[in-house]
Amino acid sequence: MSKRVTILGAGSWGMAVSRLLQRAGCRVTLWEFVPEDYRLLLRTRSNPDKLADFRLPDEIDITDNLEAAVSDPEVVVFAVPSQHLRSVLVPIADQLAHVPTLVNLAKGIENGTLKRMSEVIAEVTGAGRDQVVTLSGPSHAEEVILDMPTTVVAASTSEPRATLVQELFSDGNFRVYRSDDIVGVELAGSLKNIVAIATGIADGLGMGDNTRGALITRGLAEITRLGLALGARPDTFAGLSGVGDLVTTCASRHSRNRFVGEQIGRGRRLDDILKSMKMIAEGVDTARSGYELALRCHVEVPITDQVYRVLFENKSARQAVSDLMGRKLREEVWQ
Amino acid sequence: MSKRVTILGAGSWGMAVSRLLQRAGCRVTLWEFVPEDYRLLLRTRSNPDKLADFRLPDEIDITDNLEAAVSDPEVVVFAVPSQHLRSVLVPIADQLAHVPTLVNLAKGIENGTLKRMSEVIAEVTGAGRDQVVTLSGPSHAEEVILDMPTTVVAASTSEPRATLVQELFSDGNFRVYRSDDIVGVELAGSLKNIVAIATGIADGLGMGDNTRGALITRGLAEITRLGLALGARPDTFAGLSGVGDLVTTCASRHSRNRFVGEQIGRGRRLDDILKSMKMIAEGVDTARSGYELALRCHVEVPITDQVYRVLFENKSARQAVSDLMGRKLREEVWQ
Repeated sequence: MSKRVTILGAGSWGMAVSRLLQRAGCRVTLWEFVPEDYRLLLRTRSNPDKLADFRLPDEIDITDNLEAAVSDPEVVVFAVPSQHLRSVLVPIADQLAHVPTLVNLAKGIENGTLKRMSEVIAEVTGAGRDQVVTLSGPSHAEEVILDMPTTVVAASTSEPRATLVQELFSDGNFRVYRSDDIVGVELAGSLKNIVAIATGIADGLGMGDNTRGALITRGLAEITRLGLALGARPDTFAGLSGVGDLVTTCASRHSRNRFVGEQIGRGRRLDDILKSMKMIAEGVDTARSGYELALRCHVEVPITDQVYRVLFENKSARQAVSDLMGRKLREEVWQ
Repeated sequence: MSKRVTILGAGSWGMAVSRLLQRAGCRVTLWEFVPEDYRLLLRTRSNPDKLADFRLPDEIDITDNLEAAVSDPEVVVFAVPSQHLRSVLVPIADQLAHVPTLVNLAKGIENGTLKRMSEVIAEVTGAGRDQVVTLSGPSHAEEVILDMPTTVVAASTSEPRATLVQELFSDGNFRVYRSDDIVGVELAGSLKNIVAIATGIADGLGMGDNTRGALITRGLAEITRLGLALGARPDTFAGLSGVGDLVTTCASRHSRNRFVGEQIGRGRRLDDILKSMKMIAEGVDTARSGYELALRCHVEVPITDQVYRVLFENKSARQAVSDLMGRKLREEVWQ
């Protein structure tokens, strides 16, 4: 399928998706905001700090002009960090309202407003809900550019829109499923990063695979409970954007969120860890939003609580794990 | 809680559980069938081939006399491989019928009969269903003996019986949840090994974390479908015996099932792999039982199908993965 597509944000995922869509026959424009990254891309067509051993195909246009980038596309793809999305949207809100298909790739919940990304897009641009699709799932950019088999889910309240994105992105090694539960897909993809930080903490403390299995399972249970309270479907959390992305993130050497947790478990301070990183670990901000959402909905989220206390209240990581294991014995499933 | 407990089978998990229960105050007898393993245990109280750097506490009685071992216990724990359970049960069936609590640890489905372990126990001994508890979850013996935090689920149709096992096994680092879905817990714990073999195959082929995430998610979806058809509850598959054990197995250096898959992915023959292993990879036999169960129930299990063909019909591993990725695009959730 050939479309005029603009991708906003030339991070690792933005670059990988640019190549994917260009190879699928699309006319791709890639916009980058940070001046030094833009100039580096223009000169070398690569950014080794973000995606090593990768060169953008020559057919992809690179620009730093936001208004021009969104003047005429049929599809706009948002590949900017969650907490920056609103500021990217505001100056081009009117133009975006006329773009038939808006695809969100960010996995986060806006701090303060506690809004999902498709809600932020709809609020700022006035776009109808049936224009917006969120693509999510276990998809490290580092592997997608190597054509390793990858599966994701395209979620929208509009089935034709989800189908369009499914057909646009699918190729032999990149398989896209459809879902109508955009609430669930966005929450699962975001909240799973809190659990990834928790498993990283346990790894950093020297705990093993059993502990990781426990944290993933109980973490999945609590983010599913929170999702249900917010209108998501439980089977979405058992799917690619939930379990799939969670296990990939928790086991992966590529995950920034797991890395942050691991460093915390080894005794480093959050500030120092974040300063040393070239890319954003979405889970840190999501831990704040998730904690507040759970308070608002009166949902019990013991792992999120402990991650929040370790990240933002200087609680000892070992004490946090010990507190989790010492909870009252009970049934596996409860509300 | 202090009980007279007999554990049948001194494999790695049998040994780890012996220590767990002895430390909890139980009077523990451990029975082993293989003469050389029995003599080694008696002489050295250890078996480095099965559990390195581990010595059984002196308080544990070691025996090779099956009838004597089950003459007077309050609890009997079965830690023998699934396909051997029936032959261990038959000679002591009458005695077992009078033991109040029978705890199964094996994760498999009997070839031929396609019965779960608690069904085999009930059939052979005539024990009532409320005597039988299955304990399952992400619990590599190698980590439990190091007191790494571990969680499992004790499943029984009898809540008092599940509660007894919960209290018997729980300590500060070993946390036991209860479930009344023994069908689901047994099926999840068994069928997940088929998915573990599949992810091992992908690892052996050099595929990445995205592929593993996809196989785990879609594998979980298909074994959940099969479980539902057999009377299990779906939330059990999202729990410790399903997701939890699955992700631990798929990511772990300790997993024999993942190892078998990895060796297959690297081009070795199944016969050669199994001959070289000192312990049993339950998933190989479970792949046969799972494949037949799905045929019988008319449930679509694409990953199990491919694992079966690779293991038993010499299908190329690469072709199997390619066939999985090339399926028709569809919605994420379907029946």
